[in-house]
Amino acid sequence: MADKAQLQESIKAQGEVVRKLKEAKASKDQIVEEVAKLLELKAQLGTDDGKQMFVLKTPKGTRDYNPKQMAIRERVFNTIISCFKRHGAETIDTPVFELKETLTGKYGEDSKLIYDLKDQGGELLSLRYDLTVPFARYLAMNKISNIKRYHIAKVYRRDNPAMTKGRYREFYQCDFDIAGQYDPMIPDAECIKVVHEILTELQLGDFRIKVNDRRILDGMFAVCGVPDDKFRAICSTVDKLDKASWEEVKNEMVGEKGLAPEAADRIGEYVRMHGGFDLAEKLLQDPQLSQNKHALEGLTDMKHLFKYLELFKITDKVIFDLSLARGLDYYTGVIYEAVLIQPQNVHPSEELVSVGSVAGGGRYDGLVGMFDPKGRKVPCVGVSVGIERVFSILEQKAEASEEKIRTTETQVLVASAQKNLLEERLKLTSELWDAGIKAEVLYKKNPKLLSQLQHCEETGIPLVAIIGEQELKEGVVKLRNVATREEVDVSRVTLVEEIKKRSIQS
Amino acid sequence: MADKAQLQESIKAQGEVVRKLKEAKASKDQIVEEVAKLLELKAQLGTDDGKQMFVLKTPKGTRDYNPKQMAIRERVFNTIISCFKRHGAETIDTPVFELKETLTGKYGEDSKLIYDLKDQGGELLSLRYDLTVPFARYLAMNKISNIKRYHIAKVYRRDNPAMTKGRYREFYQCDFDIAGQYDPMIPDAECIKVVHEILTELQLGDFRIKVNDRRILDGMFAVCGVPDDKFRAICSTVDKLDKASWEEVKNEMVGEKGLAPEAADRIGEYVRMHGGFDLAEKLLQDPQLSQNKHALEGLTDMKHLFKYLELFKITDKVIFDLSLARGLDYYTGVIYEAVLIQPQNVHPSEELVSVGSVAGGGRYDGLVGMFDPKGRKVPCVGVSVGIERVFSILEQKAEASEEKIRTTETQVLVASAQKNLLEERLKLTSELWDAGIKAEVLYKKNPKLLSQLQHCEETGIPLVAIIGEQELKEGVVKLRNVATREEVDVSRVTLVEEIKKRSIQS
Repeated sequence: MADKAQLQESIKAQGEVVRKLKEAKASKDQIVEEVAKLLELKAQLGTDDGKQMFVLKTPKGTRDYNPKQMAIRERVFNTIISCFKRHGAETIDTPVFELKETLTGKYGEDSKLIYDLKDQGGELLSLRYDLTVPFARYLAMNKISNIKRYHIAKVYRRDNPAMTKGRYREFYQCDFDIAGQYDPMIPDAECIKVVHEILTELQLGDFRIKVNDRRILDGMFAVCGVPDDKFRAICSTVDKLDKASWEEVKNEMVGEKGLAPEAADRIGEYVRMHGGFDLAEKLLQDPQLSQNKHALEGLTDMKHLFKYLELFKITDKVIFDLSLARGLDYYTGVIYEAVLIQPQNVHPSEELVSVGSVAGGGRYDGLVGMFDPKGRKVPCVGVSVGIERVFSILEQKAEASEEKIRTTETQVLVASAQKNLLEERLKLTSELWDAGIKAEVLYKKNPKLLSQLQHCEETGIPLVAIIGEQELKEGVVKLRNVATREEVDVSRVTLVEEIKKRSIQS
Repeated sequence: MADKAQLQESIKAQGEVVRKLKEAKASKDQIVEEVAKLLELKAQLGTDDGKQMFVLKTPKGTRDYNPKQMAIRERVFNTIISCFKRHGAETIDTPVFELKETLTGKYGEDSKLIYDLKDQGGELLSLRYDLTVPFARYLAMNKISNIKRYHIAKVYRRDNPAMTKGRYREFYQCDFDIAGQYDPMIPDAECIKVVHEILTELQLGDFRIKVNDRRILDGMFAVCGVPDDKFRAICSTVDKLDKASWEEVKNEMVGEKGLAPEAADRIGEYVRMHGGFDLAEKLLQDPQLSQNKHALEGLTDMKHLFKYLELFKITDKVIFDLSLARGLDYYTGVIYEAVLIQPQNVHPSEELVSVGSVAGGGRYDGLVGMFDPKGRKVPCVGVSVGIERVFSILEQKAEASEEKIRTTETQVLVASAQKNLLEERLKLTSELWDAGIKAEVLYKKNPKLLSQLQHCEETGIPLVAIIGEQELKEGVVKLRNVATREEVDVSRVTLVEEIKKRSIQS
């Protein structure tokens, strides 16, 4: 721990920063962060009585889930898992960390965002950055050549968090992947169908799924005159088109990446194109593109894809978009990304505005081979649903609707209006538990009936089983409906049955 | 990466180590580990064609879960979560890492087993060691003074793994805790009831739940003449009694910890005692122990506890055992631990043999106060089910019984005996998905009927929906029962209904 003088110095310095930031009208986020740092330093100074104080927070870019958020999360996961199971997927799990070298060379420029563990002796480890690379490692390690699996787990990225937008450093991915050598584009089409089903069922509003193909991008770069060794760099610049204007992207290509302006302009013409089956047909007529082997393969497969999507009746939401690039190094074929859109109410033009990506994926035929001692390839295609943004939207919806979300499933509270009945309450509660009834009892010797009823109101417990001397003598229980306040005497023998009858079956 | 010469040097050195270990007749484990290191170094050298090779493994002490293991895991979690919900618990989640200082000073001697993250700029972070300290941090941070919550998540300990016994470095904990100021021992008794219900439902064989109290231990140490500053050290030595003999434990007390032999002998008399309500009564008559304030409180509460356990009808499995200590620093009152036992078949004495701890917990009234700026206390009691050992046992059982575990829930495979019907198969499959039916289709243009039926046999899919030219013309589907090989023509309009009717409702 730093000493007091040092910390006070730091606080002064931090205070300066805050003032300067305010003067410079810096973004609100920056100020908030600097103020947080200031408060942390203050906390480290401790209270006046010398007691060391803890900084009470979760690490930057992470959060706790409270019971209400967990209830929403459970609902979302159930929807997603049901969809994955409907498509016949099994599930696996892998450790939260991998050998550092397992992740090396898989993520291109993003590798700097990987969390490493401290070297405490033994192996060098890193937290997983996604679920795709661990999946490929799993396939190679166990010599599995075909599987359809889902995996729902947290991944870790030392990115700049923007938590109000649902961008965290610890976040869930829900992955669905199909590994195996199959006829072209059938599993690829199923992945897109899966995304379509999930986004429809979650009722988040309208969405579109953009598709493109790495081979079409590569062919396009080639015919536009991009040198081979610049493909990946230019690709990751194109990937910024969803957030930046064409002018900005062109400037980066020409200025930073050293591309000839004419080449950039030719790319600019292609990346403006979007459509469906027809666009693929049209580009197959493009005299230059159709001469490129990669582009030809990609465009031919794109036609297959749209034919299958037609059979799945989902082409109204899918757009073949030549500007879609996706940054990760390991994609080799089709790529896709789902975005939520909102009708632009401000303008009468009804232009659609993207409010962010919620799922993405593609084909990665080379990744498993990178792990296999003999370089044996296993073709894979998959999709990852990024549900943090989904949680944010559903949380806001729940708050706006003022709908009461129950965080427990308790069916009945065992209560009493009289004193000295703790043991009788515990005995009855235990009987209910043993009969599979979800039951609670207050942990007080002599709670007031009012506070017992209040507990039901607050937590949504629908029934109260009330006992008193009289009820015990008669072998009955007074069963009260919290909402209607109706009470009936029920024989102790039939109590379980009566509670089950009155509980809404979920 | 080290260069070839360096690595070859290391391999030679490692080879030396292996030889020496063998000579010294070192434990098998050590040899296995050294050989693994050797193989890793060899792998780093790469193949002869110069291709860099990966070490294909998960980090030490961790494992993947394959689909069969996941099916068992899902079943165990469902049992445990149902029990937690039956007792009215909500759930929360916290990040996998915490600020390093959040974990500091909570685990006593075990702190050395905490995984730290590398300092990559920003906060210093550690992986969570249990779910209890993050829970206490959560309560203090959100000023929550009462809650009943469960939390199921992975925790991390750099311990010596013994994976065949289910001891891993990454493992699940299933925690159930009750926070709040209540009348004595009521929530404590409920925690023990929860453990009893879970172990009964999991059908792992017979078990016992040992209980003791930190205050009784402290009182016992005091009357035995243990100096105050040695309480924690002696306590963690007593904790070893389940694995070591009394002689070994006494040697550590006297030799390592510097306790007077007479004091050790007096402890030895107490820790041999076990019983129930009666033992608590008897010890309350002990002229020395009953004079000690802490012991008196602990013994009085122990009587309360057994009274409640009597009402819950579970005293036959609960033992008041003065040798139970539990290592963690934060316990302040009752402590308990559940062990699986097997009747000793070898000896006719029918002595019970413990095969390991599967759950443990206790009361920790001071932990939340350590996080609260004003030291405001929130009394807590909880239990943690350590299910890795449970998984191991159930996996072995499943293997022994040769019972086929399904890893998917697919109800029907859409198939064809004829060529050129891929599009019709996809169309029908999509219709079934949209109707909520779990359906699969092979990703081949023209798969053989036999290989389609084989897929059903292998994965346990009970139904096949077969289409051909004839069926398409007539608007029917041939629905085949895989087990009985019966086939019936079903109108396409009623297909969904027919599949639902024939599917076993789960």
